[in-house]
Amino acid sequence: MDQVKQENNKTYDVIIIGAGPAGLTASIYASRYKLTNLVIGKQLGGELSLAHKVENYPGFVSISGLDLTAKWKQQAEVLGAKVILKEAGKIEKQQDQFLIEINETEKYQARTVIVTTGSERRRLNIPGEKDYLGKGISYCYTCDSPFFKDKTVALIGGSDSAVSGAVHTAEYASKVFIIYRQDKLRAEPIWIEEWQRLEQQGKGITIYNTNITEILGDGTKVTGIKLDKPYHNQDTINLDGVFIEIGGVPGTTLVQPLGIELDETSHVKVSENMETNINGLFCAGDMVDKSRVMKQAITAMAQGAIAAASAYKFIKKQAAPQIRGI
Amino acid sequence: MDQVKQENNKTYDVIIIGAGPAGLTASIYASRYKLTNLVIGKQLGGELSLAHKVENYPGFVSISGLDLTAKWKQQAEVLGAKVILKEAGKIEKQQDQFLIEINETEKYQARTVIVTTGSERRRLNIPGEKDYLGKGISYCYTCDSPFFKDKTVALIGGSDSAVSGAVHTAEYASKVFIIYRQDKLRAEPIWIEEWQRLEQQGKGITIYNTNITEILGDGTKVTGIKLDKPYHNQDTINLDGVFIEIGGVPGTTLVQPLGIELDETSHVKVSENMETNINGLFCAGDMVDKSRVMKQAITAMAQGAIAAASAYKFIKKQAAPQIRGI
Repeated sequence: MDQVKQENNKTYDVIIIGAGPAGLTASIYASRYKLTNLVIGKQLGGELSLAHKVENYPGFVSISGLDLTAKWKQQAEVLGAKVILKEAGKIEKQQDQFLIEINETEKYQARTVIVTTGSERRRLNIPGEKDYLGKGISYCYTCDSPFFKDKTVALIGGSDSAVSGAVHTAEYASKVFIIYRQDKLRAEPIWIEEWQRLEQQGKGITIYNTNITEILGDGTKVTGIKLDKPYHNQDTINLDGVFIEIGGVPGTTLVQPLGIELDETSHVKVSENMETNINGLFCAGDMVDKSRVMKQAITAMAQGAIAAASAYKFIKKQAAPQIRGI
Repeated sequence: MDQVKQENNKTYDVIIIGAGPAGLTASIYASRYKLTNLVIGKQLGGELSLAHKVENYPGFVSISGLDLTAKWKQQAEVLGAKVILKEAGKIEKQQDQFLIEINETEKYQARTVIVTTGSERRRLNIPGEKDYLGKGISYCYTCDSPFFKDKTVALIGGSDSAVSGAVHTAEYASKVFIIYRQDKLRAEPIWIEEWQRLEQQGKGITIYNTNITEILGDGTKVTGIKLDKPYHNQDTINLDGVFIEIGGVPGTTLVQPLGIELDETSHVKVSENMETNINGLFCAGDMVDKSRVMKQAITAMAQGAIAAASAYKFIKKQAAPQIRGI
């Protein structure tokens, strides 16, 4: 009997999709509840794997995103979980269970599913962006702004998140640019006011109606950016860091075909127990509406733990009628 | 100038009361937001310090509650916080700030306060209970039941939490007693049914209308319990572990004089941003209504992080009108 067939005969108590903070915590808790579980995720650590240093996860003064994630994965495995680093292609709801397809020949069955497919930060898709990720380019100012003490950085974007990010970053950096393709920042008044105060101090500079076309570097780190319109007669700016804050998209591709309910911002609607409108399917992490308050590893992990508890209760309830029949 | 007077001249951005998971995480996040902060807590780690082994906190396969907490404290301090292990006696709301009194001569001022005074598990207050805490006695079955593999344990109590705890514990222990002072368990039907299944298997035994009067031990660990009524003609039962699940009381003594709003179960009502009805005062952790879904370190920590973000926004908003006036 080959591996695939053997797995096809097994029904997991819970399959967790996504191997980031929410998914790995859900696995740790599921194992503690004695639920057989399998984690399927295309990228270990999810978005967190991009963080070159994490200094706000309680327990580690300073650790790389990859190292932290490896610890969580190891712990999940010690507790009995299997972790498969592949992308799940499809979730099918059958009568009393779910079928998860990685591909035509690799399929897994589970009584419940916890989906933690996070969100994808929008990329600029310009030259240099991939090359200098983690070498001066970041998609998370909360994670990374402290690493730019007394440096010059640019925030790309003009949303609330971009402007509040610029204000926050200015608490470390000596000079902060906001580079925005439109002619007016779209942030809450409090952030606009704070930003204007920084502009008055000469610490904050806003460049409107301008796109960034390339991120420049010396091979090991960011050294500047190229603009599509001259600023002070130059089409490049020398700087040390670039925070790209042009929004994110909740990763709901996998669950949408199931008819899952989304809110007006395309996040999955969940109850406080992380239940979705699909019986037996739970969601946690950056993809759910409850994450809109704060999208940090620690908040996603709390939701993962709650989702595991809910999967446990769901399975026990499902089992109850059979017991009554004995 | 002495220490007290010096401190009296200083106004912290935020004072965090409680040095458990929620409080220490709030401090770590507050520091990352560049908020000056002070943590005042009577017991480092709070309830978690009672856990002799923690195996469900992501990042550490196995660690004692004390060691884990010490790591969080160290990290908070590295990031700039001051941690005072004393009990706060009083919070006074003044015009634009709060005054926190440890005693008549030790007082601290802050623009915002994050209260994380957790909950206190109800104790039986019987002989042996203090002596064998962490040596066979636990107030947290989710934390500790895996340590009683193939052992005999008793759950004291008859609530939903006690019965679900007994079912959960039976996944590790070979024999589980529920000892309850009333004549009928007060749990959800699903737990009652699960428990009845265990009773049918002879693995679960319920002793009604009975109180436990003493926890017996050999000096290093629990060996049995004493009952106020004979069971099988014996007034003692030999066993290895005792889980005391007779409820908890949210630690709201400090905030009640401020007129804080509580829900029907005496938890502090908070918004999803951890705001209370008192401007500038935030709560997080086991004391808040949002913790009723799950009371674990990881969920309290997420709330602590959110509370810190809210304190940051609150302070920036407070500062905003002054900027307008420039």
